[in-house]
Formats: sequence, structure tokens, C-alpha cells
Amino acid sequence: MSIDIEKSLKELAALGVDMYHKDFLLTWEKSDKELKAVFTIAELLKEMHAKNIDTSMFRTGLAVSNFRDNSTRTRFSFASACNLLGLAVQDLDEGKSQIAHGETVRETANMISFLTEVVGIRDDMFIGKGHTYQKEVADALDDGFKQGVLNQRPAVVNLQCDLDHPTQTMADMLFIKNHFGGFENLKGKKIAMTWAYSPSYGKPLSVPQGVITLMTRYGMNVELAYPKGYDLQPETMKIAEKHAKASGGSFKVSNSMESAFKDADIVYPKSWGSFQVMERRTALLEKGDHPGLKELEKECLAENAKHMDWECNDKMMALTKGGEALYQHCLPADITDVSCKHGEVSAKVFEKYRIATYKEAGFKPFVIAAMITACTKKNPAQVLGDLYKAAQKRVL
Amino acid sequence: MSIDIEKSLKELAALGVDMYHKDFLLTWEKSDKELKAVFTIAELLKEMHAKNIDTSMFRTGLAVSNFRDNSTRTRFSFASACNLLGLAVQDLDEGKSQIAHGETVRETANMISFLTEVVGIRDDMFIGKGHTYQKEVADALDDGFKQGVLNQRPAVVNLQCDLDHPTQTMADMLFIKNHFGGFENLKGKKIAMTWAYSPSYGKPLSVPQGVITLMTRYGMNVELAYPKGYDLQPETMKIAEKHAKASGGSFKVSNSMESAFKDADIVYPKSWGSFQVMERRTALLEKGDHPGLKELEKECLAENAKHMDWECNDKMMALTKGGEALYQHCLPADITDVSCKHGEVSAKVFEKYRIATYKEAGFKPFVIAAMITACTKKNPAQVLGDLYKAAQKRVL
Amino acid sequence: MSIDIEKSLKELAALGVDMYHKDFLLTWEKSDKELKAVFTIAELLKEMHAKNIDTSMFRTGLAVSNFRDNSTRTRFSFASACNLLGLAVQDLDEGKSQIAHGETVRETANMISFLTEVVGIRDDMFIGKGHTYQKEVADALDDGFKQGVLNQRPAVVNLQCDLDHPTQTMADMLFIKNHFGGFENLKGKKIAMTWAYSPSYGKPLSVPQGVITLMTRYGMNVELAYPKGYDLQPETMKIAEKHAKASGGSFKVSNSMESAFKDADIVYPKSWGSFQVMERRTALLEKGDHPGLKELEKECLAENAKHMDWECNDKMMALTKGGEALYQHCLPADITDVSCKHGEVSAKVFEKYRIATYKEAGFKPFVIAAMITACTKKNPAQVLGDLYKAAQKRVL
Repeated sequence: MSIDIEKSLKELAALGVDMYHKDFLLTWEKSDKELKAVFTIAELLKEMHAKNIDTSMFRTGLAVSNFRDNSTRTRFSFASACNLLGLAVQDLDEGKSQIAHGETVRETANMISFLTEVVGIRDDMFIGKGHTYQKEVADALDDGFKQGVLNQRPAVVNLQCDLDHPTQTMADMLFIKNHFGGFENLKGKKIAMTWAYSPSYGKPLSVPQGVITLMTRYGMNVELAYPKGYDLQPETMKIAEKHAKASGGSFKVSNSMESAFKDADIVYPKSWGSFQVMERRTALLEKGDHPGLKELEKECLAENAKHMDWECNDKMMALTKGGEALYQHCLPADITDVSCKHGEVSAKVFEKYRIATYKEAGFKPFVIAAMITACTKKNPAQVLGDLYKAAQKRVL
Repeated sequence: MSIDIEKSLKELAALGVDMYHKDFLLTWEKSDKELKAVFTIAELLKEMHAKNIDTSMFRTGLAVSNFRDNSTRTRFSFASACNLLGLAVQDLDEGKSQIAHGETVRETANMISFLTEVVGIRDDMFIGKGHTYQKEVADALDDGFKQGVLNQRPAVVNLQCDLDHPTQTMADMLFIKNHFGGFENLKGKKIAMTWAYSPSYGKPLSVPQGVITLMTRYGMNVELAYPKGYDLQPETMKIAEKHAKASGGSFKVSNSMESAFKDADIVYPKSWGSFQVMERRTALLEKGDHPGLKELEKECLAENAKHMDWECNDKMMALTKGGEALYQHCLPADITDVSCKHGEVSAKVFEKYRIATYKEAGFKPFVIAAMITACTKKNPAQVLGDLYKAAQKRVL
Repeated sequence: MSIDIEKSLKELAALGVDMYHKDFLLTWEKSDKELKAVFTIAELLKEMHAKNIDTSMFRTGLAVSNFRDNSTRTRFSFASACNLLGLAVQDLDEGKSQIAHGETVRETANMISFLTEVVGIRDDMFIGKGHTYQKEVADALDDGFKQGVLNQRPAVVNLQCDLDHPTQTMADMLFIKNHFGGFENLKGKKIAMTWAYSPSYGKPLSVPQGVITLMTRYGMNVELAYPKGYDLQPETMKIAEKHAKASGGSFKVSNSMESAFKDADIVYPKSWGSFQVMERRTALLEKGDHPGLKELEKECLAENAKHMDWECNDKMMALTKGGEALYQHCLPADITDVSCKHGEVSAKVFEKYRIATYKEAGFKPFVIAAMITACTKKNPAQVLGDLYKAAQKRVL
């Protein structure tokens, strides 16, 4: 997985992309070259870390994290990424803030940003709200910077919203790119993004939506499969279709896990709540209607229970290419007989790919660090090249 | 707003003040020269930040924050300030500590300070307690340093107490100093520090008390106005009178918002609870008397409601000098029809000065960093001069 | 207390110990030389800190703290230690994590460690669980490093478990070593590790267990005394016996505070819950049996109340060598008439040794930093020597 640093630096410079003072919110807002730049920076940072080269490109500066939902993995990925670049994380705990109330988003966005270089936001609970909120923060920062309130324009990084989960899917992509030996080798590969049974309900849509919109850009044959009723947000389906057409890949939707797994090179079985359910849930959450939420949960779990056969197990895996498709998951997975009685994946299949999923997750801090680098540096290739040449030891 | 760094460094050196191993608790304990030094350091740090010059004067060291009341703005200002100087913030969460119980203040103060350079404390809920607590911590640190428990004497910085809010009022002051083009231009200017209606009650007294005691030192004509019964702590009124006399300014108290706004150059309309109410509230909070607190709130809100006309709106602003007084607020403001039905300020007036209030707030991190610099360095001008000459890039 | 840095560096190099990629969980798993190395590094770091020499041996890197019990002192000691070396602390808050649930320990351990250099864990509530959990994390990290999931193997540092509290007892030891002028002067000294009355119950066993197992290694005469029924875990008693035999010291157990204090050079009176009580408590906690816990507390407090005479006061101290034994405590102590009505120590005795106990605690951050240094560096003497020669100012 080790890369040639000097070659990558040249490739990065040759891309000539300019993401300075922009944000990273949705992968489909980014050009292919921009994504390539972020992937390249991520690999450079990972390699330099492995080689014990200091990559702290900030001597001081704050990184604000704003988690509107519990998080361990993303929290540590963000903290790791920021630390790797020399930034100090300060958490915006909304229990102690007014950022959620209408007017004050634009105010609080500025109040927390006087010496801030990046704002990472996770807001995936409310359909139609998460991305909107992130945009609102970004607009407020644009205004603050333009008006001279802020000396610098902090980058906003989407750590998961209702639409997309770019730090996850780009880590997934970097992993399979490395697994298959390059982006060009992904052309024609089949990936099955499928729903899977879980004893909980209402898991976010951002991962499947992020996967179908991203993987279709690389000439892959993406099959999305889920039981009837577990639809994704329509706009993301349209983007996936458009991407598939443009890249020479394909995008197919079915209601059969077997169909999706058939001859797949990669499988990504994962539970989610349907778009319709999530919309109802959003409305109930906003009203604080706890009996209604309880009722919805009951109804959904009953519906879920009809699809317990959507499990990634030996029988399913046998359908894949040579019975040896690569299993992916954003973790934590619901593992049958381990973390629950019936889950998304059998213990045997998970164990076979456990270390692979850990390595997949291991790309995430570097992807986040790459997004920050791309959005806060006029010339990332120059900055990284200087750090590489300086070759300061990260650890004495 | 940009300054001449070399000139400011010379002025700072010429002041020849020595605040090393002292604390920053109340502005009125500081000499004019000491305040000047802190203002000058704040401007130097702000300018060096704008010029991308690294100002981290600590390679390692902890900054302890102790918030005994919720806070977003001050929390981020403190975190930003400490980070700008190279310190790492560690929060003292009293839910997990015994620092509140009598005897152990002196013990805990030492236990958290073995490698600590600054302790920032916000304690504004209890009349007669906040400043006393900060002094107690400071005395414990003096003792620990003298006895050889601590290698260094951490500075205590008042992030708001029952008496004063120096990081806020000095940020306010730096803003108007820059707005009017220098301290000397403030002489003879009229500032109206007035109560204003808010749908909540019991807001701290520290801002109005801090404003009247500080602004009177610069030859300004300060008019404090509030409805009958909304008194401040008497000792701060006396200090304001003394300062006004010494500086050639004036300090007037009235019960009319109109009177205060008349021909004012600056207006600072803001809600607060009366001294008497705050004393009753302190007693009830200490007893944990929730029904009593509920009763007091009801009573106070009823009293507040009689003064709904204390709103900063077009009509009021028309009374000010040329109808164009500068509006100030420590934020967040209660804005009529935006954050509440009736508030301290109309949406139209607030919007006109919104960016100005953001810029006002933008001085706070640098004021805090300046206080830390002044109290932890034998020769701040030398240290800042060395950093300026080294001219390390803060961001690569 | 100041040391000769160059001499210490040579001694450290001469020890030739290799703790690289190991953990620091239990002192009795470490050789005498390994302990000596950690003590020497701690003194070197303390002296370099006092001399304002930068010791940040990490330019970037995370330090994960995992407190499964409330903590102020240890939290700040760990934060201070990590900051001193250049690491940034990220707290793993299990309210927001799944690390506690069976399977996922190994997963979460890896997920939080991609850019992590040390994981500090406090888990002292559950007999038979704390150390086991720390081992489980360590094993998961071993596996992750071996499998290429992690670029580096983070060290696990025991910040208190059910068996041992090495960061505390090694700080205690460094203090008495300095107090008596060297390890060799401890030979033949008598230390009384005794139970003492407290109005609370169920305090951890790790301190007395850690003290008897560690102090017996230095030729000291250790007398452990407690009322009948307040037994420690048997395995730690056996280790203490073995150590005493090997070092030429002695290990005696009695049920008399007077016997232990008789001619003692050092006394360490401290409350703890008995092993049997702690086992019952563990079972009740696991079942979430709150009435059972209430019942157990009542029973234990009644038992405790029979031993109110186990107080360290003038009368007891008069029994010690020349009436002038050194008093030690891990803090906070339950002080009669100060923090409670009847406690572990009289106000007069505590006040006499108060500053001494603060200085004792002052070694802890440096002990933790030394453990991290020892476990993450192939050649700590080289690294520290280089930092000493570079002589960068920690504070400008």
C-alpha cells in the first residue's frame, strides 16, 4: 500500500485544482479532479505518517467539531486528522450553546471561528436538515470572512449529513482502490450496495447514498438492493444514474440481495431506515412526540423483521465472484451471535474480513486531513512537498 | 484597524509595566499603564495573527478552564487565546471534581497546576462569591509556588465573575478605541450603558459594572440608566465615580433610557437582574430552594414586563448623536421578533450593527491572550519582538 | 530535589532496558531495572521542566484517555504528562461509545488508535475486571499493529485498575526516595500502610495493594494493618511477601494501627473497602441492583463505624520514629473537622504534612510521562539527551 511520495506530489501538482476557501460537503459537488486531489493528499499524508515525517502545517489554529449525534469513530478520526496537521480540537457542545436556534446559526458560526481553521459537522438525524445546516454555517463563514470579521475562512467539512457521508465513502474508496491496485482497475468491477437486517431501525441513509453516488463515478457496476419500501432519497438515485452513464459504468436497482451479490467483486451490506420512515421520524423528533416515535419504532421493527433473511452469510457470499468478494462495512456492524441475535452479517463472514474493515476505517483520518488540507491551502502540493523535504521527525 | 508592529512594540517596552506572576481579576485593580500594556499586546497579537506570524510562546503547557456556568463564546475565546500562544486547554469539570467544597479549593488549585500556565475561571452566578472564589484559587497558587509545589505560578484570568467581566469590557473598549481612532478620541464621548428589556431574568451584573468602571477611565461621559430597582452593586458605582473624576469624564445615573441615549456617541443597552434580586437568588440557589426560585422568577418577570419600552429601536436611536450612535452588545442579544417576541433591541437596529458587534467580539480572544502574556512573561515586549523577528509562518 | 541531568542520562543508558512497544499495567510485571528506568526518566523530565527545557518528543500524536470512573487529579496528571511530551489528549467518553460491549473492545481499541501513541485507562470499580479490560485493549492493539492496521503500537498505561495504581505508587516512591536521599537509604525503613476510617465506603484497593507490592522491593519493612475483614486481594499479598524476601525487607500483616505506626518512618493511613465487599459490590453493580447496593452500603458503613478509632492523629503519630514519621496520602484525604466529621486524619496532622502530600502528588505527571516515554521509545536516553542538548526553551 506504500506509495512513491515524489511521484504523487507531482501528480497532485499536475491536477492543478483550486479548492482554497471552499468546503467539503457533498462528493457530487466536486469534480473528478478535485476528488483525485483529495485522494492523493490522503495517501501522501498516510505515507508520510508511516515514514514518521511531521505533517503539521499549522503551528496554531482551532478545529471545531460539532457532533449533533453520538460518535466515537468519527470523533476520533476528526481529532486524529486535525492533530496530524497541527490543529487543536475544540468541541462545540450544543447543550451549552444556542447554535441550533434560527437566527443565531450565522452568529455562533462566527463567534467560534475567530481563530478557527476548520469546522467539522455531523448532523445526520433529520432528513432535509443536515446538509441545509452545514450550508448555513458555510454561508455565515463566507459572510464573516468577506466582512472582515474573520482573518481566515475556516473550511466546513461534512462529517455526515442526511445526504452524504463523504469522509466514510472516500475512505471506502481509497481502500478498494488500494485493494484492487488502482482506480483504473475498478472499471467493470461489480459492487453490491445492499440493505441488511438489523435489530435496530432508523440508521442513516448517508452511507448507501454516498456509496452509490461515488462508486458510479469510477466505471463500476453498482447494484443497489433493498426490500420494497426501503427507498433512498430520490435525488441521490438520479445522481448515481448520471454518474454511471458518464463513467461507462452502470447503476441498477433491485429488491434482491441475491441479485446484487451475484458475481459481485465487492459487497457492502448495511442496514438503513427508509427515506419515508426517516421523514416521518424527522417530523416526530421535531415535535418531540415520544409516543409517536415509540409507535414508529414498533412498526418499523415489525417491518424489518420480515427481512431477516437479508444477512450477509456464507450462502450469500457463495454467490459472489469466485465466492470471494471483498466485504465492506463502515463499522460497527451488527454481527449475528456476537453483537446481536440476528444481524447484518454472520460472525464467520465478518471475522474473515475483520482486519480488512479495520484497514478500510484506517483511511478515514487521512481523508479528513486531506479535505482540510485541500480547502485551507492555496497550493497543497507545495505545502506537502516542503514538509517532505524538511523531513522533520514526527516522533523523536 | 491594522497597526504598526514595531511602533507598538516600542510603546509596550516603554510602558515598563511588570505584571509577571500576577492575575487579571478586576480592571480597577490595574493601573492605567497596565491596561494600556494589555491593550497593546492584544493589538500586537491580532496583527501578527492577521499577518500569519506564529505567536506560540509556549512549546508545552496546560491552560485550565473552569466554567461554573454554561458558555460558548467565552469558552471558544479562551480556547482560541490559549491555542494562539501554544497552550493546550484542559477543562475542569466540577461534576467530576471536589473543587467546590471549602477546604479543597486550595488543594485542587494545586493538583491541577503542576504543569499549568493559566487558569481561566467563569463564576458569575452567585453575588459575593465569584470574585472571592477566584481570589481563593489565586492565593492557593501563590502558596503552592512559594512552597515549591509548583515549578511555575499559573496566572488566574477572570472570565466573568459577580463583579467584573474584564475580557468582555476590554474587548468592547478595544473595539471603540479602533472605531474612533484612538483612546485620545474617546475623551468627551458619551456612552449610554442602559438596562434593556428581556424575556428572561437574572442576567449577570458583571457587564454593566465592568463597563461603567472601565469606560469612566478614558475621559468619557458615561450615563448609566435603568428602571428603578435595577441597581448595580454599590461598590462598582463608587469606583465609576472615582474614575470619572480622575479622568476628566463624568458618571451620571438616571432612570431614563431616553436621557441616556440623548446625544450619545455609543449605546450599550442590555438586560440585567438587579443587585437585590441577585442576592435573593444567590441565597435561594445555595439552599437549592427550587419553588423559591420559581416564585422569584415569576415576580421578576412581572416586574420586567413593566419595562418593555426599554428597547433599543429606531425611535431611541434617533435621540443619539446624529441618530448614528454606535450600538454595542456583548452578545447574544435578545432581538425582538428574531430570538424572542420582545427583546433588548429591534431587528432593524441590530442588523445595522450586527457586523460591528461581531468585530467587537473578535477582540476577545486577543484580549485574553494578552492578559495571559502579560501575567506569564517578565518582558512581554521582548518575547513578542522575538516572535515578530523570527517570523515563523503560523500556517504553512 | 534537583538532579544532575548528565549523570542521570548516563545511568539511564547504562540500565539498557527495552520497554519499547510494551505497556505499563502492573509494577510487579516489571523488573527492578525497568522500574529504575521509569523513575530516572521521570526525574529527568521533572528537572528539564524546572529548567524550562522543551521535552516535546512528539510533534503530533493523540493520547487517548478512558476514565471509567470520575477523576480530577489523574485526569489532569495524564493531560499534563501527555502535553509535556507533545501529545494531544482525546477523551474516550463511553457514554458515546460501544467499547464496553464484549466483542467491540478489540474493534474500538483499533478505531481510536490510528494516530494514537498512548491509551491511558482508569477502571477500578469492578474487582476482577479492571486489569482484564486493560489487557484486552493491549492485546487488541498488539493484533492491530501486527496486522498492519496501525502504523504504530500505542502504549497502554494503567491509570488505576482493580489490582494496582502504578502511577500513584511510583509517584509516592519517588517522593520518599527524594525525601530520604536515595533508594539505598530506604533499606530498613519502616512504612505503615494502614486502613483508616472514612465516612464513605468502597474506596478502591489499588493503592494499598500497589504500595505493599512496590515498597517491599526496596528493602523496606512494610507493615500492612487493617481491622479484621478488610482484606486485600490475596494475590497481591503473596507478591508483597515474595518481594520482601527478595529485597531483604519484610512484610508483616496486623490488625492494629498502633502496631503498624510503632517506630514507623513513614505512615500511609487510608480507607478502603474489603476485597469481599468489593466482590459483592461488583456483582450488584453488574446487575444494576440499586436496593442491594444501598443495603450493602448501610451494612458497610455500620461496620466502618466500629473502627472510627483508626484515625491518624497526634496520639498515633507519637508512636512513630521520634514522633516524626513522614505522612503520605494519595489525596484527597478525609480530614476530620475539615472535609467530614470523622475522617482518616486529624486536621493538625494533615496540615503539618499538607505541602509534603502536594509535592508527592507533583511527581505523578512526570511518572506518567516517563511511562509513556519508556514504552514508546527504542532509546529513551538518546531521545532525552537530544532534547537536553537542543535546549529549546519550553516557555519563551
